[in-house]
Amino acid sequence: MKAEPIPELRDGEELCALDRNGLCIIQKKTAFRFGTDAVLLSDFALVKPAAKVADLGTGSGIIALLIAAHHPDAHVSAIEIQPEMADMARRSVEINGLDTRVDVREGDLRNAPALLGRGAFDQVVCNPPYNEAARSLLPESRNKLLSRVETAVSIDDVCKSAFGLLKSGGRLSVVFPARRLNDMFAAMELNRLAPKRVRCVQADASHAPRLVLLDAVKHGGAQLDWLPPLLLQNPDGSYTEEWHRIYG
Amino acid sequence: MKAEPIPELRDGEELCALDRNGLCIIQKKTAFRFGTDAVLLSDFALVKPAAKVADLGTGSGIIALLIAAHHPDAHVSAIEIQPEMADMARRSVEINGLDTRVDVREGDLRNAPALLGRGAFDQVVCNPPYNEAARSLLPESRNKLLSRVETAVSIDDVCKSAFGLLKSGGRLSVVFPARRLNDMFAAMELNRLAPKRVRCVQADASHAPRLVLLDAVKHGGAQLDWLPPLLLQNPDGSYTEEWHRIYG
Repeated sequence: MKAEPIPELRDGEELCALDRNGLCIIQKKTAFRFGTDAVLLSDFALVKPAAKVADLGTGSGIIALLIAAHHPDAHVSAIEIQPEMADMARRSVEINGLDTRVDVREGDLRNAPALLGRGAFDQVVCNPPYNEAARSLLPESRNKLLSRVETAVSIDDVCKSAFGLLKSGGRLSVVFPARRLNDMFAAMELNRLAPKRVRCVQADASHAPRLVLLDAVKHGGAQLDWLPPLLLQNPDGSYTEEWHRIYG
Repeated sequence: MKAEPIPELRDGEELCALDRNGLCIIQKKTAFRFGTDAVLLSDFALVKPAAKVADLGTGSGIIALLIAAHHPDAHVSAIEIQPEMADMARRSVEINGLDTRVDVREGDLRNAPALLGRGAFDQVVCNPPYNEAARSLLPESRNKLLSRVETAVSIDDVCKSAFGLLKSGGRLSVVFPARRLNDMFAAMELNRLAPKRVRCVQADASHAPRLVLLDAVKHGGAQLDWLPPLLLQNPDGSYTEEWHRIYG
């Protein structure tokens, strides 16, 4: 048992178990809750021993918590622009006794290099925002596309901040809709992050990929390595062994 | 039986059956022979009724022959820079009685719009060259990358010619190594061809994709549609039903 007093939940919040390791997280009952994307990204990111990791737009803190729990010598600096979410993430970190290894900072991810440290990170993770409606505006130029599609921050902002945060050779890992893989490649390459490793996520082998897991290396140049697809379901509809491994 | 006399084979050539429709092709016994890539691309391309199709770098003529044979009202203009290959492709067209619907022109695909007609095509197909060795040069800028990687023509040349050949709304369809999908997206987007439809080709669901089939629309803007992966083998190592459908 932990010695710290468990912070109280606020109105409209609940505490949810995350995995078999006893990890738990505070979520709002009615607002955005963490999804499959975040759990898959935490698994996909190649976190080196004693890595310094930045989590951009951490929300409820899900990715920061999973990475810290599964990599016992990693340190995670998380940034979140919404004050209530940053506060909730911070309390989840305390409940899990991870406050010596996870910092949650309230702030705009566009300022992350100044707030968290330039060139100080081995790994940046982000489950970036995206806005399907805006996609239909069909802007002609890449720059217009990148500046319009996301309303709060763009994928270009995410890549620019990641470039600022990473050491040379460090990695940005993201999860993103497959239908916009070309946009994510372009944003990475505009920001001198070389796409390096990609994995399609799909219900099963007879379905098209819905998500891609993707990482890019700062100042990297090697070719793109494809992993076998991550299949979530067996032909009989049951979850695959890999799904069970990831969900714990 | 065809009324035309069958042209003689030249030294070192042989006549190979292509599929159940009785299609056949002249190939050199020792030089480059058509591969899986070309057959898969012919199947992937969405050829509209009465389409005008251009085949860039036709080689032995394999893609032009398969498209003409499987789309009885399509017209294919093929271009090939190597005189002996262009001659061989032209004789294969004659053997199959397709000379009213397939033209083979000797020339550089970079001049294809001037040679074959600007804005005249519904569909361009290409199995572009690529050079793995050059990839390790790791050039810093996109433009340098596109100009160095391919020795004879670059994927940028292919996309530029395709843009010149296509009607607005027409499609370029290519087959390309999966490990360079990001480079192909970039070359398409530099040339105002919007990536539209993508399909991974892999041995089976437990393997990483090796090739991608990809098309892009001139002046298009819609999102990327992913198809289910094309699996070549069943878990027991036998060929899949789809493989049999494509190979005929």
